[in-house]
Amino acid sequence: MNTKQIVLASRPTGTPQLTDFRFELTELPELNPGDVFLKPLFFSVDPYLRGRMKDAKSYINPFQIDQPIESNALATVIKSKSDKFEPGDLIMRMLPWREMTIVSDKDLQKIDATSEHISYYLSVLGMTGLTAYFGLMHICKPLAGETVVISAAAGAVGLVVGQIARIHGCRVVGIAGSDEKVRLLVEGFDFDQAINYKTAPDLSDAIAAACPEGVDVYFDNVGGEISDAVLSNLNFKARIAICGQISLYNSTTIPVGPRLQPIILSKSALMKGFLINNYKSEFPEGMKYLTKWVKEGKLKFTETVFHGFAQLPTAFLGLFNGENTGKMIVKV
Amino acid sequence: MNTKQIVLASRPTGTPQLTDFRFELTELPELNPGDVFLKPLFFSVDPYLRGRMKDAKSYINPFQIDQPIESNALATVIKSKSDKFEPGDLIMRMLPWREMTIVSDKDLQKIDATSEHISYYLSVLGMTGLTAYFGLMHICKPLAGETVVISAAAGAVGLVVGQIARIHGCRVVGIAGSDEKVRLLVEGFDFDQAINYKTAPDLSDAIAAACPEGVDVYFDNVGGEISDAVLSNLNFKARIAICGQISLYNSTTIPVGPRLQPIILSKSALMKGFLINNYKSEFPEGMKYLTKWVKEGKLKFTETVFHGFAQLPTAFLGLFNGENTGKMIVKV
Repeated sequence: MNTKQIVLASRPTGTPQLTDFRFELTELPELNPGDVFLKPLFFSVDPYLRGRMKDAKSYINPFQIDQPIESNALATVIKSKSDKFEPGDLIMRMLPWREMTIVSDKDLQKIDATSEHISYYLSVLGMTGLTAYFGLMHICKPLAGETVVISAAAGAVGLVVGQIARIHGCRVVGIAGSDEKVRLLVEGFDFDQAINYKTAPDLSDAIAAACPEGVDVYFDNVGGEISDAVLSNLNFKARIAICGQISLYNSTTIPVGPRLQPIILSKSALMKGFLINNYKSEFPEGMKYLTKWVKEGKLKFTETVFHGFAQLPTAFLGLFNGENTGKMIVKV
Repeated sequence: MNTKQIVLASRPTGTPQLTDFRFELTELPELNPGDVFLKPLFFSVDPYLRGRMKDAKSYINPFQIDQPIESNALATVIKSKSDKFEPGDLIMRMLPWREMTIVSDKDLQKIDATSEHISYYLSVLGMTGLTAYFGLMHICKPLAGETVVISAAAGAVGLVVGQIARIHGCRVVGIAGSDEKVRLLVEGFDFDQAINYKTAPDLSDAIAAACPEGVDVYFDNVGGEISDAVLSNLNFKARIAICGQISLYNSTTIPVGPRLQPIILSKSALMKGFLINNYKSEFPEGMKYLTKWVKEGKLKFTETVFHGFAQLPTAFLGLFNGENTGKMIVKV
């Protein structure tokens, strides 16, 4: 049986292009004992996938040329030769970008979908929520009354970080790339203030004005000059979680900027990078709180949904133009 | 009664010069009840004093033009109108650069000198030792078998960090600025390996060769390009203590370099700056271990001593040329 797939045609130089992807037909293997036949419903597209397009040693293997891209997905079981899954089951797993796929039942996670938004298991009730939770609560450890600044605040992780910080009594200031996002953060997601970095005459001054008591916690998703502006407003003993650096992922040269260590030293600041899988053993703790807050209505969420399997590369490229508010997903 | 003092004549631009200091006579006040009259024996000179010469808000007040420089000192009590101190007592305190001085007995710490090297209370048995201890043990938390790299390794703090890391079973690699220092680190202070950054053809390669299993801990006293070379060799979950940035203290422009956050992110690394006073409440813990290790002969030390009160500015300037091995002090 044939299915459509999307492979990496070439390793991008700088900003990825549609031509770095190729659509093609592939033949699925036989369904062997222990296998399940899946139809993906939603694919997550995430900035970190850019890193896997480079041929560089990393915490996760690079994508191979002519091989399918893969990302986290929700899928429904169509046929099963596994005694653990039956048709109709909803599962979550890293899946190749294929319209249909066959996987072994090992490491396959069944989702007991209680949320009406099943796609939320790819975001606020999944990796996105956990990333926000552990980065904020385990690295930054915000205290009530402290000021928390978030870059890419209207992105998937940023939205959740801001709301968790509000739940803990912090003043929350978001940085985003449009007036519409800025309005949404304040009016829809309870941020105390938000700044459009594209129109602020001086971003450092704008942050100083929005944070009259300075910045105690910075949750960084973007890096680059936005971070320079935040770091010039740090308080003594500030904590900085490095979750993403999307502004630099497409750099073709080594990004250069003001040296950080003098600030880290003079402010006795802590900076820590993390991958969500570092916290794997503590996921149940994170899920407990995320589920609770979503149920209580304290943690709201939104998605940008592209429709159709063919939209996967376009949706991914959109991440680098800030086309998403909340989680970027593709409904296939 | 008159005494000689050294005041800040002008705020240095770039590297401090002798002309930024001025010697003059000043009249000491009357000895009031609660006061003690002190004769300083040793002054500590430290890189951080450079920061106090700038007119910038910081964790400690800037020096004022025409006012004496001050630094940590050991002094002997000559006369006392305090009931807590008597002539002959040895005390340690921040003191102005004066040949004689009068201070109140408040915040005055008596030293019960049991070490034969009383000047060690300004270094390995004082702030230097505590800085090494807390930066390494409380921030970097090295595990036996891990690789620890230290910049300015033959400096006061570096020497102690390396030996504490060896006591904890680490592989210890020092970076220093002369072949003589490199030899001393390995032959005199038990470092596994040491690198002369001034003669290494490629410092990053030299560090890679000295650290075949990568760098787990980096104790940074210097910053700049030396740190760039270390950071290109970090292991996953590396820890970096920022203790000093002496290579940048005399910069007249904002120092620029490769952006750090991408490395911090991809390595899930932790970077933390600190001031020794952040750990004040835990000093007894640090002193307990330092005293024990010195007594057991596991923690050795050395000093560079300049002789004579008039040498204070020269000794201070020497810090920026790496003229010291171990602690730089002035015996007055």
